Amino acid sequence: MTRVKVVAFGGGHGLAASLRALRRTAPELDLDITAVVTVGDDGGSSGRLRAERSALLPPGDLRQALAALAADHDTDRQTAALLQHRFAQVSDTDPLAGHAVGNLLILGLMEQLGDPVAALDHVARMVHATGRVLPMANHAVGLEAQVRGGDPARPGEVVTVRGQHAVAVAHGHVEAVRLTPEAPCACPEAVAAVAAADWLIFGPGSWYTSVIPHLLVPELARAIVASPARRLVTLNLGADAETAGLTDADHLTALRRYLPALRVDVVLADSKAVGEPDTLREAADALGAHLVLAPVQLADGSCRHDPEALAAALVPVLGADR
Amino acid sequence: MTRVKVVAFGGGHGLAASLRALRRTAPELDLDITAVVTVGDDGGSSGRLRAERSALLPPGDLRQALAALAADHDTDRQTAALLQHRFAQVSDTDPLAGHAVGNLLILGLMEQLGDPVAALDHVARMVHATGRVLPMANHAVGLEAQVRGGDPARPGEVVTVRGQHAVAVAHGHVEAVRLTPEAPCACPEAVAAVAAADWLIFGPGSWYTSVIPHLLVPELARAIVASPARRLVTLNLGADAETAGLTDADHLTALRRYLPALRVDVVLADSKAVGEPDTLREAADALGAHLVLAPVQLADGSCRHDPEALAAALVPVLGADR
Repeated sequence: MTRVKVVAFGGGHGLAASLRALRRTAPELDLDITAVVTVGDDGGSSGRLRAERSALLPPGDLRQALAALAADHDTDRQTAALLQHRFAQVSDTDPLAGHAVGNLLILGLMEQLGDPVAALDHVARMVHATGRVLPMANHAVGLEAQVRGGDPARPGEVVTVRGQHAVAVAHGHVEAVRLTPEAPCACPEAVAAVAAADWLIFGPGSWYTSVIPHLLVPELARAIVASPARRLVTLNLGADAETAGLTDADHLTALRRYLPALRVDVVLADSKAVGEPDTLREAADALGAHLVLAPVQLADGSCRHDPEALAAALVPVLGADR
Repeated sequence: MTRVKVVAFGGGHGLAASLRALRRTAPELDLDITAVVTVGDDGGSSGRLRAERSALLPPGDLRQALAALAADHDTDRQTAALLQHRFAQVSDTDPLAGHAVGNLLILGLMEQLGDPVAALDHVARMVHATGRVLPMANHAVGLEAQVRGGDPARPGEVVTVRGQHAVAVAHGHVEAVRLTPEAPCACPEAVAAVAAADWLIFGPGSWYTSVIPHLLVPELARAIVASPARRLVTLNLGADAETAGLTDADHLTALRRYLPALRVDVVLADSKAVGEPDTLREAADALGAHLVLAPVQLADGSCRHDPEALAAALVPVLGADR
């Protein structure tokens, strides 16, 4: 069996779902998995740590990716559950309340080793991860968006919404999104992984705050365009606040808008969740992509991917000869 | 080679030195090591966590014992170093400053699993520890002492000093020490380890705050007296604040005062650090013990044990037939 090098882009829950599915393609496929993770998080535990400790890489999305890749051995599963555990609130002034243990562990390692990639590689070894987790950039970035109707007091007007968390929960229509600083340096190991990949996978995930940010890092965008890898886009199962009103086809158009040179080989969507298959097929065509429809949604009706079903859909795609 | 079951009592640096030496007796001895650790710490990182989160077992001494038992593999050594790493202070209000990462990790596991022994066993698995670490009790205890001259404003008078940290750094002469509550329940697994042991090892360590507290837990004291194990006392290399003015012989007398039924088989002391070998030999005799003198001090002249030298001294003692 040939080893297939896969780079999965995203952040948070969507990327974790993608990674859990990729792991489950074994033993049918022999994947070498690298997750490349956004570093714009400014909400919750990561946001508090970032506010307190300037220049910190927000650890939350990195932690989720590492937990998703933890080996199936009991000890590794328990360590992964510990990374995900959030401290209970024991008093009004409890400084640990809500922090994920893994966020503090990653933060401590980054401080101790002075190198975020070495820190993440160590956590990967601690949980015997079936893959590597890298940040898209070695320094935290900001995100801001132009949102029409983003301020309920001024309906119809375009306002600037600052911060990843604020953009993710903003009401209204996102007209444009950008990073601050505008052109952060990419993580060199992530650029190298893209160059060496057989497949690049975008999504699922919050489109403007977890998927598109990767395309806004100039070196990473150039590496994506230049890579000999094939490209897969896994679409979301439903809209969230930031993409309310966007069709599946609009999601593909948005990728192309931020990286016009992007060509895609396969678009994977859920056979039931797709609203207008013909419009989606046209949008896929425009990117040079073949549309694959498969049942990948969890049976409970929630807007989440079933790892087993997504794995089953990924096997013929990633295992196909060029 | 027969497996020898060893239980080492203590807390903090002294116990860690003992554990590092015990590990180094391999391959000459095949030891099954259990560390039983005091749970009275109320200073530093542990003290802050304990003050914030009531009923918490202070994690610092437990963490040090686990780090000392971590396997020699590079990944395990790095994980142990991470457990020991203390967050730098990045601002005046930084809530993480000074906390050891391992304290937060142990705290999170105890909260998640609701069982301190399961939590400590998991950390032991994470670092592939060559032994087990148990608390002497499953709930934090307090410590207080009657100290003559403990209040510089009232020289010669006996005052009550409350809290392990305050006792450890108090000036004056400790007349008596007790736990609060006076008779805490012992950790059942620690009692079982004592009952099954071949050797019980007391010290080195802060005598009143790390060694004697074990003798003040009624079930543990009964188990120590009833155990068929032989007993070794490893003496300190010098006095600290709480034992200023005490001779080596006084250290042995203090053990006997708090557990009159205690019989000891071997007292191990440094050949150079011992002040009055004849007086010490008499005190050892009174406990039924044989005095072993060996060069166990670090060559740098500090009051710390050299793990290699202490291991070399322990091999003939622990390996001897009864």
